[in-house]
Amino acid sequence: MSLSPTPAKVAIVMGSKSDWATMQSAAEVLIELGIEHHVEVVSAHRTPDKLFSFAENAQQQGIEIIIAGAGGAAHLPGMLAAKTIVPVLGVPVQSAALSGVDSLYSIVQMPKGIPVGTLAIGKAGAANAALLAAQILALHDEVIASRLAQWRQQQTDAVLQHPDPREDV
Amino acid sequence: MSLSPTPAKVAIVMGSKSDWATMQSAAEVLIELGIEHHVEVVSAHRTPDKLFSFAENAQQQGIEIIIAGAGGAAHLPGMLAAKTIVPVLGVPVQSAALSGVDSLYSIVQMPKGIPVGTLAIGKAGAANAALLAAQILALHDEVIASRLAQWRQQQTDAVLQHPDPREDV
Amino acid sequence: MSLSPTPAKVAIVMGSKSDWATMQSAAEVLIELGIEHHVEVVSAHRTPDKLFSFAENAQQQGIEIIIAGAGGAAHLPGMLAAKTIVPVLGVPVQSAALSGVDSLYSIVQMPKGIPVGTLAIGKAGAANAALLAAQILALHDEVIASRLAQWRQQQTDAVLQHPDPREDV
Amino acid sequence: MSLSPTPAKVAIVMGSKSDWATMQSAAEVLIELGIEHHVEVVSAHRTPDKLFSFAENAQQQGIEIIIAGAGGAAHLPGMLAAKTIVPVLGVPVQSAALSGVDSLYSIVQMPKGIPVGTLAIGKAGAANAALLAAQILALHDEVIASRLAQWRQQQTDAVLQHPDPREDV
Amino acid sequence: MSLSPTPAKVAIVMGSKSDWATMQSAAEVLIELGIEHHVEVVSAHRTPDKLFSFAENAQQQGIEIIIAGAGGAAHLPGMLAAKTIVPVLGVPVQSAALSGVDSLYSIVQMPKGIPVGTLAIGKAGAANAALLAAQILALHDEVIASRLAQWRQQQTDAVLQHPDPREDV
Amino acid sequence: MSLSPTPAKVAIVMGSKSDWATMQSAAEVLIELGIEHHVEVVSAHRTPDKLFSFAENAQQQGIEIIIAGAGGAAHLPGMLAAKTIVPVLGVPVQSAALSGVDSLYSIVQMPKGIPVGTLAIGKAGAANAALLAAQILALHDEVIASRLAQWRQQQTDAVLQHPDPREDV
Amino acid sequence: MSLSPTPAKVAIVMGSKSDWATMQSAAEVLIELGIEHHVEVVSAHRTPDKLFSFAENAQQQGIEIIIAGAGGAAHLPGMLAAKTIVPVLGVPVQSAALSGVDSLYSIVQMPKGIPVGTLAIGKAGAANAALLAAQILALHDEVIASRLAQWRQQQTDAVLQHPDPREDV
Amino acid sequence: MSLSPTPAKVAIVMGSKSDWATMQSAAEVLIELGIEHHVEVVSAHRTPDKLFSFAENAQQQGIEIIIAGAGGAAHLPGMLAAKTIVPVLGVPVQSAALSGVDSLYSIVQMPKGIPVGTLAIGKAGAANAALLAAQILALHDEVIASRLAQWRQQQTDAVLQHPDPREDV
Repeated sequence: MSLSPTPAKVAIVMGSKSDWATMQSAAEVLIELGIEHHVEVVSAHRTPDKLFSFAENAQQQGIEIIIAGAGGAAHLPGMLAAKTIVPVLGVPVQSAALSGVDSLYSIVQMPKGIPVGTLAIGKAGAANAALLAAQILALHDEVIASRLAQWRQQQTDAVLQHPDPREDV
Repeated sequence: MSLSPTPAKVAIVMGSKSDWATMQSAAEVLIELGIEHHVEVVSAHRTPDKLFSFAENAQQQGIEIIIAGAGGAAHLPGMLAAKTIVPVLGVPVQSAALSGVDSLYSIVQMPKGIPVGTLAIGKAGAANAALLAAQILALHDEVIASRLAQWRQQQTDAVLQHPDPREDV
Repeated sequence: MSLSPTPAKVAIVMGSKSDWATMQSAAEVLIELGIEHHVEVVSAHRTPDKLFSFAENAQQQGIEIIIAGAGGAAHLPGMLAAKTIVPVLGVPVQSAALSGVDSLYSIVQMPKGIPVGTLAIGKAGAANAALLAAQILALHDEVIASRLAQWRQQQTDAVLQHPDPREDV
Repeated sequence: MSLSPTPAKVAIVMGSKSDWATMQSAAEVLIELGIEHHVEVVSAHRTPDKLFSFAENAQQQGIEIIIAGAGGAAHLPGMLAAKTIVPVLGVPVQSAALSGVDSLYSIVQMPKGIPVGTLAIGKAGAANAALLAAQILALHDEVIASRLAQWRQQQTDAVLQHPDPREDV
Repeated sequence: MSLSPTPAKVAIVMGSKSDWATMQSAAEVLIELGIEHHVEVVSAHRTPDKLFSFAENAQQQGIEIIIAGAGGAAHLPGMLAAKTIVPVLGVPVQSAALSGVDSLYSIVQMPKGIPVGTLAIGKAGAANAALLAAQILALHDEVIASRLAQWRQQQTDAVLQHPDPREDV
Repeated sequence: MSLSPTPAKVAIVMGSKSDWATMQSAAEVLIELGIEHHVEVVSAHRTPDKLFSFAENAQQQGIEIIIAGAGGAAHLPGMLAAKTIVPVLGVPVQSAALSGVDSLYSIVQMPKGIPVGTLAIGKAGAANAALLAAQILALHDEVIASRLAQWRQQQTDAVLQHPDPREDV
Repeated sequence: MSLSPTPAKVAIVMGSKSDWATMQSAAEVLIELGIEHHVEVVSAHRTPDKLFSFAENAQQQGIEIIIAGAGGAAHLPGMLAAKTIVPVLGVPVQSAALSGVDSLYSIVQMPKGIPVGTLAIGKAGAANAALLAAQILALHDEVIASRLAQWRQQQTDAVLQHPDPREDV
Repeated sequence: MSLSPTPAKVAIVMGSKSDWATMQSAAEVLIELGIEHHVEVVSAHRTPDKLFSFAENAQQQGIEIIIAGAGGAAHLPGMLAAKTIVPVLGVPVQSAALSGVDSLYSIVQMPKGIPVGTLAIGKAGAANAALLAAQILALHDEVIASRLAQWRQQQTDAVLQHPDPREDV
């Protein structure tokens, strides 16, 4: 596997390069929160062996949360989850014909035994996967907890300070 | 893998024992057509390593078609297809909440590169997977071709001979 | 709030008593894994103030993961998530008319800023919420990590030891 | 709360500034009918406390109808309704991936006990929320009743006077 | 029209007798709140003239809110709304094949100009239509306002007093 | 083809015997209206040649309207329509997994050039196909026109005479 | 009613001027077939009285088929059908948020007693409504029958003469 | 039939010329794999007789797999399958209003007896139909088997060699 040892606790993986347009919203939030992360394309269908080795090595690489984005018959998050007990968060990428309903169902409807914590379809879901990862890390990391609290306060303030939607629209 | 060498050219696999209620319709058709087949539970999520070894060995075991049934986030057919060039036919098992729409989308919406030939949701799909497998085998097996033609003629005759739906209803 | 101080790191909350038929699958898994948990009805619509005080106090009560189940216009998970940085896992309860698609959309389609890690509709989702909670706790708890590994091995073995679905059916 | 005392009987609130593109159709109708109204961004997820104080104060502020627009996991209308007995009318804003079906289900599928009167997805729904608000006010306000009757007559006349769709198309 | 002059401010109408199984939930809530109401079958498709005369007379009969339930191609609420400025609340009745999605879309997706305040599919929606009607009446009726507040408090207390879902289940 | 010359102007055909449970609602209405009709199973998939000969002969057999019911990938109505200019009315039979949405889409979404007049899913649609057939025949048959008017009056009277849904429920 | 006496046997009506973009496909086919037709905007919601008088007069005006197009909560076809025994063909106009699924359900899911023969969503459906109207007229009009046969032959020939899709693409 | 004798084992047919934009993805993959193929427009609805003669002659023409693409009420794949035992692979073409869900349901939901192996909606499905056809041919053709293995290895390598999605994006 190409993944070299790294201090990153969060890995962002996705089924194809084209998913990056969605998944970079996860990376951006992690950068805002100062959380190191690893980014890699891992295709369930085109590189199944890499998927398995990635998942098998995740825990000993020090990865604590895997954020996995995929579209269509999105098998990546669920298959990663089947091969590791590192928590997997799934992001349904919006698909061409079915707008991501196929991606959502393929990720969220996992059978009893192998969970994937699923976020919203598209960029909002990718950003939220990063926030949820940060919330999990924050359980044992006060710096991240503090940055998260601040991040939230800023988004609250942004709404409170501009309550009139008719401005600048 | 528990699969011992076998002359069966068709393998019927499924994600859990409960899928047998659906998938036995495939076995029944194969029995009617006199086609030997192998039946086994292979769970993408609970036994991912078995899935991989099954798929890796399928070709040299002499398997020519894999019929795979699964429900919900039905990853079994697609992951088998990712690991072998033996043709994979997928059967969406009817799920509890979403009636198999989730199963259907998870099986049929494969990305370019890894195909799964998908049949209808439920028992009709399972029976048709067996018929399609037989049609593929019949390309190079005149006995099966002949039995298939007969099987079809019988179902045609059954309709032709009882054209009045008001009988016996 | 009626929640007394407790060593439970996991809280299972739900919108109404009738959701218990679904959510007890979460409790059962936590019991199997030996994880203490708190169970309580908190209705977003009928007891909004309790929802807010529950969420505001969750962190100092020592709660590390909230599992929230709700059906229909399922606002409970998202509103809890809006009021705490404790990670919230959402379970869509199967609804009467729309089979839980309404519950799923109301829980998973959160806007950027407030994540809910969403599981499958119904009992499988409830059980998986407990497993994902355990996976999160296992990041810093080797006993839970070990029990989880064992739990998974058992479900894998159960499939491997009974590969023939035609037995006992 | 930033809402200062006001003679407005109708409040238009929405989850984010971007919803204004939809919700201004409500404001335009109220302006046509000469009905004063208050407009404000109130986010269920980013400003939950403001949501609660807004709802708690609505009645004594003299607000008689709240029109609330939101998209995705649209919790704003339902949570307002949970905190006030002022009637709440909900407008599902068209969402990126699911075209507002998620918004619609999240708003309309409220459980027994807390109603939200829901209008159509998008601008038509926003305009109709304003008209329904006017119809409610008109029960005790003959001026509004008269303006409404006139507004309706005009839209009827507009159709009657141009019955041929082939003109000017 | 068979509707005789009546002091009832709320009318509950429905497309067929079979809808009563759903719509009686509205009547029950009105009875609990002590609000007189009129109940009648008015079919948009089988009795269109009655529909029109009902709507034309509603205002002078003293009706202040019409609750209309219908299933399938549910035209009753929208056509009533087209013929009166009395506010119309629509209840989608759960249909045989499409579970009420058809009813919901037919009622809620009204074009700009003629609003129907739509509630949830089925009994919960019927009960909520009654509650929303009561909230509208309560704007000018302190007795109803007081009963509504009490009704809500009771449902809140019912949840607060039995927070443990494991009791009596 | 088994269809012998007959004075029937209406033919009711269906894809399988099991569709009779739905399609007999069409026959019952035709009987009530005194319209002779032919009933036959014609399967698009199991008896495609019979389908073609049936359609090719329909016009010279004196058939003026074909009512065709089918479920799932319901090709019968559309293929009949492709082979005759006799008007074809399609009835989507409720299917096991998808409740007839598949049947509806397969029947109604015909491309430009070959129309199928589609009715509601299930028994109501079957009955309505018969009524629409009668309305078409009534354009040139005053007896049928008169019976239809009477049939409609009866259903209107049935609603008018029992306006109170609380009776006998 | 603005409809003056006319020899047109086919009327094309629609809910708003904007529907003409869709419904002109019906007019174009009728023109190709040399069938006179009447075109008019009749809004169920904005001009309900005109809808009723149009339907009440249709038969004596000599109209033999009404083609009605509408979008969203598309009540026009069903309400026309409730007021006349002239056959009504419904065309679901593609809507903004729900792509015409709402229009389709509102038109096709009519209850037993009042049929609407429904065509495909959008322009193909509009063109096909005209063709189906022609097929109905052709039952008693050999000129139209002959033109229809010719029209069909032309579209068949167009396909047969250009079987290679790679030409001119 | 215009199809002249040809050594092509794979036929790509489609319902209209406009489907070529989708179906050429099948042709491109077959060209990459060096597999001769026949391409032709065969419309189920506009050229039903050609459809039948095509299917009846397919086997003796030496065709071993038919790839059939169609949109909307996509009857082409299923009707071909009803008339030949040559395996039929169906490609749902993305439709205007329903994004190909109608096409998918019409193709995949075949009744027991006549299978169509269905691929994903759109271009990915077309490409995968070609790959599945190649996999079937590869069962008895080592050259194709070898090319397929190489094709797959290339797509795997393409992912492995560019694991970082942030490059060139």
